[in-house]
Amino acid sequence: MTTLRVAMIGYGFMGAAHSQGWRVAPRFFDLPATPEMALLVGRNGGSVASAAAKWGWSETSSDWREVLDRDDIDVVDIVTPGDSHAEIAIAALAAGKHVLCEKPLANTVEEAEAMAAAAAEAAARGVYAMVGFTYRRVPAVALAREIVTSGGIGDIRQVRAEYLQDWLVDEKAPLAWRLQKEHAGSGALGDIGAHAIDLSQFITGQRLVDVAGTIETVVKERPLLESGSGLSGTAGVGVGTVTVDDLALFTGRFDGGALGSYVASRMSTGRKNALRIEVSGSNGAIAFDLEDMNALHVYDGAAPAGRQGFTKILVTEPEHPYVGAWWPAGHMLGYEHGFSHQAKDFVEAIAAGVQPEPSFADGLHVQRVLGAVERSSEERGAWTNVG
Amino acid sequence: MTTLRVAMIGYGFMGAAHSQGWRVAPRFFDLPATPEMALLVGRNGGSVASAAAKWGWSETSSDWREVLDRDDIDVVDIVTPGDSHAEIAIAALAAGKHVLCEKPLANTVEEAEAMAAAAAEAAARGVYAMVGFTYRRVPAVALAREIVTSGGIGDIRQVRAEYLQDWLVDEKAPLAWRLQKEHAGSGALGDIGAHAIDLSQFITGQRLVDVAGTIETVVKERPLLESGSGLSGTAGVGVGTVTVDDLALFTGRFDGGALGSYVASRMSTGRKNALRIEVSGSNGAIAFDLEDMNALHVYDGAAPAGRQGFTKILVTEPEHPYVGAWWPAGHMLGYEHGFSHQAKDFVEAIAAGVQPEPSFADGLHVQRVLGAVERSSEERGAWTNVG
Amino acid sequence: MTTLRVAMIGYGFMGAAHSQGWRVAPRFFDLPATPEMALLVGRNGGSVASAAAKWGWSETSSDWREVLDRDDIDVVDIVTPGDSHAEIAIAALAAGKHVLCEKPLANTVEEAEAMAAAAAEAAARGVYAMVGFTYRRVPAVALAREIVTSGGIGDIRQVRAEYLQDWLVDEKAPLAWRLQKEHAGSGALGDIGAHAIDLSQFITGQRLVDVAGTIETVVKERPLLESGSGLSGTAGVGVGTVTVDDLALFTGRFDGGALGSYVASRMSTGRKNALRIEVSGSNGAIAFDLEDMNALHVYDGAAPAGRQGFTKILVTEPEHPYVGAWWPAGHMLGYEHGFSHQAKDFVEAIAAGVQPEPSFADGLHVQRVLGAVERSSEERGAWTNVG
Amino acid sequence: MTTLRVAMIGYGFMGAAHSQGWRVAPRFFDLPATPEMALLVGRNGGSVASAAAKWGWSETSSDWREVLDRDDIDVVDIVTPGDSHAEIAIAALAAGKHVLCEKPLANTVEEAEAMAAAAAEAAARGVYAMVGFTYRRVPAVALAREIVTSGGIGDIRQVRAEYLQDWLVDEKAPLAWRLQKEHAGSGALGDIGAHAIDLSQFITGQRLVDVAGTIETVVKERPLLESGSGLSGTAGVGVGTVTVDDLALFTGRFDGGALGSYVASRMSTGRKNALRIEVSGSNGAIAFDLEDMNALHVYDGAAPAGRQGFTKILVTEPEHPYVGAWWPAGHMLGYEHGFSHQAKDFVEAIAAGVQPEPSFADGLHVQRVLGAVERSSEERGAWTNVG
Repeated sequence: MTTLRVAMIGYGFMGAAHSQGWRVAPRFFDLPATPEMALLVGRNGGSVASAAAKWGWSETSSDWREVLDRDDIDVVDIVTPGDSHAEIAIAALAAGKHVLCEKPLANTVEEAEAMAAAAAEAAARGVYAMVGFTYRRVPAVALAREIVTSGGIGDIRQVRAEYLQDWLVDEKAPLAWRLQKEHAGSGALGDIGAHAIDLSQFITGQRLVDVAGTIETVVKERPLLESGSGLSGTAGVGVGTVTVDDLALFTGRFDGGALGSYVASRMSTGRKNALRIEVSGSNGAIAFDLEDMNALHVYDGAAPAGRQGFTKILVTEPEHPYVGAWWPAGHMLGYEHGFSHQAKDFVEAIAAGVQPEPSFADGLHVQRVLGAVERSSEERGAWTNVG
Repeated sequence: MTTLRVAMIGYGFMGAAHSQGWRVAPRFFDLPATPEMALLVGRNGGSVASAAAKWGWSETSSDWREVLDRDDIDVVDIVTPGDSHAEIAIAALAAGKHVLCEKPLANTVEEAEAMAAAAAEAAARGVYAMVGFTYRRVPAVALAREIVTSGGIGDIRQVRAEYLQDWLVDEKAPLAWRLQKEHAGSGALGDIGAHAIDLSQFITGQRLVDVAGTIETVVKERPLLESGSGLSGTAGVGVGTVTVDDLALFTGRFDGGALGSYVASRMSTGRKNALRIEVSGSNGAIAFDLEDMNALHVYDGAAPAGRQGFTKILVTEPEHPYVGAWWPAGHMLGYEHGFSHQAKDFVEAIAAGVQPEPSFADGLHVQRVLGAVERSSEERGAWTNVG
Repeated sequence: MTTLRVAMIGYGFMGAAHSQGWRVAPRFFDLPATPEMALLVGRNGGSVASAAAKWGWSETSSDWREVLDRDDIDVVDIVTPGDSHAEIAIAALAAGKHVLCEKPLANTVEEAEAMAAAAAEAAARGVYAMVGFTYRRVPAVALAREIVTSGGIGDIRQVRAEYLQDWLVDEKAPLAWRLQKEHAGSGALGDIGAHAIDLSQFITGQRLVDVAGTIETVVKERPLLESGSGLSGTAGVGVGTVTVDDLALFTGRFDGGALGSYVASRMSTGRKNALRIEVSGSNGAIAFDLEDMNALHVYDGAAPAGRQGFTKILVTEPEHPYVGAWWPAGHMLGYEHGFSHQAKDFVEAIAAGVQPEPSFADGLHVQRVLGAVERSSEERGAWTNVG
Repeated sequence: MTTLRVAMIGYGFMGAAHSQGWRVAPRFFDLPATPEMALLVGRNGGSVASAAAKWGWSETSSDWREVLDRDDIDVVDIVTPGDSHAEIAIAALAAGKHVLCEKPLANTVEEAEAMAAAAAEAAARGVYAMVGFTYRRVPAVALAREIVTSGGIGDIRQVRAEYLQDWLVDEKAPLAWRLQKEHAGSGALGDIGAHAIDLSQFITGQRLVDVAGTIETVVKERPLLESGSGLSGTAGVGVGTVTVDDLALFTGRFDGGALGSYVASRMSTGRKNALRIEVSGSNGAIAFDLEDMNALHVYDGAAPAGRQGFTKILVTEPEHPYVGAWWPAGHMLGYEHGFSHQAKDFVEAIAAGVQPEPSFADGLHVQRVLGAVERSSEERGAWTNVG
């Protein structure tokens, strides 16, 4: 196998990011197979053709089911809104296609369960599924995991994780599909809180078992878009009801015993993309902020008294995860590099015949955490088992 | 009235801070009355004498009740552990002494209620009581309040507040009085969480009405001290049970409607004294960190698109609260300046015959919030009315 | 014209960066012509073939002169060491090829003068040349120029610029070609100091007219490489003399009157790629650091007293230069994006038949500044005219 | 000896700072002798009386010569403008008084030489003189010196030091005494550049032997004050010529061989009090900024590859210089604490009969460096021996 022919379903902002990942990864990493941008699928023929031309996909289709029957497609990459993930992924796996699916895995726990079951069954046949929590592939995050899971900060005592944005602070921001429960499934909780949850579990190597929290829609009505899709549409007439949360506050208990506090907010004025995590251990700590994504702050509790402090490691050295393939030391990577790293890791796992991570089971677990937060919120914020 | 003769009860670390406040305030501020460091009271005669000599108190006593009958004492300043606050404060107020009492106001809501009632009764007689949330008097905090309560960030949408320390990360840190419920009343929640609560209410001008949270003792057993007092005592034989929390996570609802998230932790490895607060509004935000206490970060949502960002204001200009009395622009203030500002504000209110702030009623409200968090924690973290 | 067929001469680290620029630019920007990665040229056939395959160049050649006669090559992109820039660029321009040449323009002022003359002559024929100071295309830098040249900080009073690295701190770092005067022409001064000079002139819109400075080789002997090329070669036997500087300190006078101070160092332990510039004006200031390249700090002297401070603008909004083509607000760009921006700007200028910037004349001016610093250093650091 | 009776000559802003030092030091440090604020001297009787009352000096005088004959004065503390330092200090030392003199030591090298000679002669009699470079006593600076002079960063390779302020950016800032050469001797160079020089020598343990630089008066005319003294006077009629520099850029060579670059500016818009120093060594680095004065950034070149970075040490732990006497870990110190530390160090040296540091000889050396920078500036910026 020297080529992996990819069909991508969907072509929003995530489609651009995934395209860049497939395009660039083989130019910097020595991959066991070369991804080929074979087919781009979307309902609106004209838009798809234009996206395919711009991003470099060889062919287009307006029906995702077409990929199921095509022997020349090896991988289905799903970047549609969450409500279609389950149907597409399950069918693709059944058709023997490897699947990369954007997060969150699905809009409901039930869908996610069906997807994880399908993925487990497919894996037994050597067909693999992965969910796209790309922030795991930021070098500073991968380094944080290396340090924490190898015992570098001792026993985990406390986690603080938050994902802060502000694009809904403006009351005139329109009622886009991401603000409608039937399309997006969830709001700040599912879209960005999911990243905070995944990162906290990835870095600690532990899972959340119980949660307690509150979700809220701070701005409850917003102007309607003329067309139903897209964040950038022209504002239409009248207002509609926002049916997803824009602020989620919750606490979680890890299976190792530690407590974590979480904030997912689109009401954090001035914070553009602040996915932050700090893990405090019995002998050290790590801290990360996506708005300063090339740095990891590490506190070494074993340093001599009077010399302790957070060390700001610029994670741009050849020794660091993923970094050696790119530029000389000290040169910054950006947002999209995670998608190249994701493509690389996915291709390597497929080529090696091993399960890529995070698996659909991992994605399902995040979905269960999200569901438990929602149930807790409905039950006056009381502690709720993730299940 | 040109002199206010002060008796201070207690002489721990807080005694040093209050002494510095009384000593220094009149050297920089033009006060309507000069505080006189008249009497230092503590049970251990030798230690008190030594503290009085070092800090500059004229006289000492081993019995706080002595102050009640002395006409030459105008102010009673209480810096003892919380379990004695109520008794001393109520008696002093009854005896016609103005009272400054360290926070938290008391160890229980009941005590705090009695104190607030006594203060209200005394105020009617022109005798005033104040509780010592000195961080209100950090210039950057006072500036934050000015900006927020004057509408500078619009409607308040979200609050994040945390007080992070790490001095209990070490499992060998001994079982000092602050870790014993009978003396300290509460742990991280009451000692440092109280500051986060007060600051969030002070800056927003709003009060918490409901809370939901969890408190926890991460390290449950610690070495016994040979003597029962002081954090720095020699570790003794055996271990004892820690009876207060060292980690508290909670959520609150303000009377204006906004949600706030709170962390109070002594398990935040590497964080020494990180009292942080961020208030997000419909048109801006402010952010503060006590570890960088001379700075306030302000986000102006009305700035032109493309020019927005957090402005780091060095709060060391003559225009800033309290600052003009000190040094030229750009010269840093430190922790203890809050105690001079507290002394100044207290003396000015007493001289003017007006209620100094924060009042015992304010302190009682914080106590009620603390109590509600504890009740919520006992009730699976569910939302609980502050009462 | 819908395609611009590019031949790139050279294939070191800069070759990877330029390749990424040509590859990615048309995927995100709507270009008037599409660059085609037609031909990669390098002396070592095997290495070139391997680089071409990895980076996606269609053909290879071992002789750069081949491009001169090929009608199917529109652009010559020069990424070789500085000693070959003049010969290749002049020949390519004479052959009617547009030229993009890496900085510094040449190893000597004489060569640079010849190149600038050739470029001026070619421009009259509609054939254009540009020199690759890509840091101009970091969005935060481009925003800084917008602000400063539009009067946003008033009259320019003072400039501080420094480019700090540390890869020569280690005395065992080998004697690579960049440390040999015959190949590299200059050391820290010419390689990274040139960037600081260009950025200071670009942002201020002014030119340096006099300089005074000192260049130094702190570590004077280094281990020989077995092979003469490349930074990453195996250390050979014996040591050789470093013939270029590793530390340059100089002062410059701008034509507008302001003074600037410059540091270019490969001895700044712990600084990996810290290209920093601060421009102080009569009514504001801007500050930038390449190690935090998505941020620009702007001080607005017209803000009300007590509200002034440096505003940290995250230059990741659609309003910012270049940014709208990439990701949603708040998503970070990295080092290599500058090369896409360079490709875009170059293609647009060529398509429009206008001179792309920075021109060879700009590159020559930087070269003259570098030469004047060297002369000053030889004359006891005295002020020297740039000429 | 249990008391040191101090007479302070002068009562401007520095007088307030010194007063605070004398007042507070004995309250926190166990001193071998207690400083007594005995006599405040100033020409304007009313102002002196008012300052003495506010700051707590027992007596006042309008003639500094009075102190020479008074047996009850042990220490003369000089905080007048630089043009009177020599006369007072030399007379006081001759009269057997220990002397603490504000920096810069004098307005000319000649005066400073006479003072150093007088101090050397007095020291032989057990009478000591010290110059007030208080920033040496910022704990983070003292820690930096400990680390650097004990070899913690290896051989010193490069120094960058700058002192940036902006209070002269405003062209309407009046022509105060600090801007008149006959009173102030020097401008940014002598007033704040002197601090940068002293700090760089203190931290490295080395001395500057050659310098090359340029000094400049950016704003050459300013409004006249009605009265000639003080920065805060009412602006008068007309303008006058600024006779001192407001911007100084220079380079220095240390006796250990390393180069240092220096900036002293009052034109650095937005920088309020940014005294910054970074020392780069063969095996590490330290960095400090007075605007974040409780932190020291340390880079440990011996840390494992991939784990290196600048560690931000909060210099607020009991292990750190001076800190243990103040507050619990994590509590910030401010500007004025340096004056308490200075008082402590001075009193301890006097009590022990040893030379306090920095000596007048140290102050003279700084003066010689300043003089050499001025000579270099007059000689086209060429390298000039400090002498």
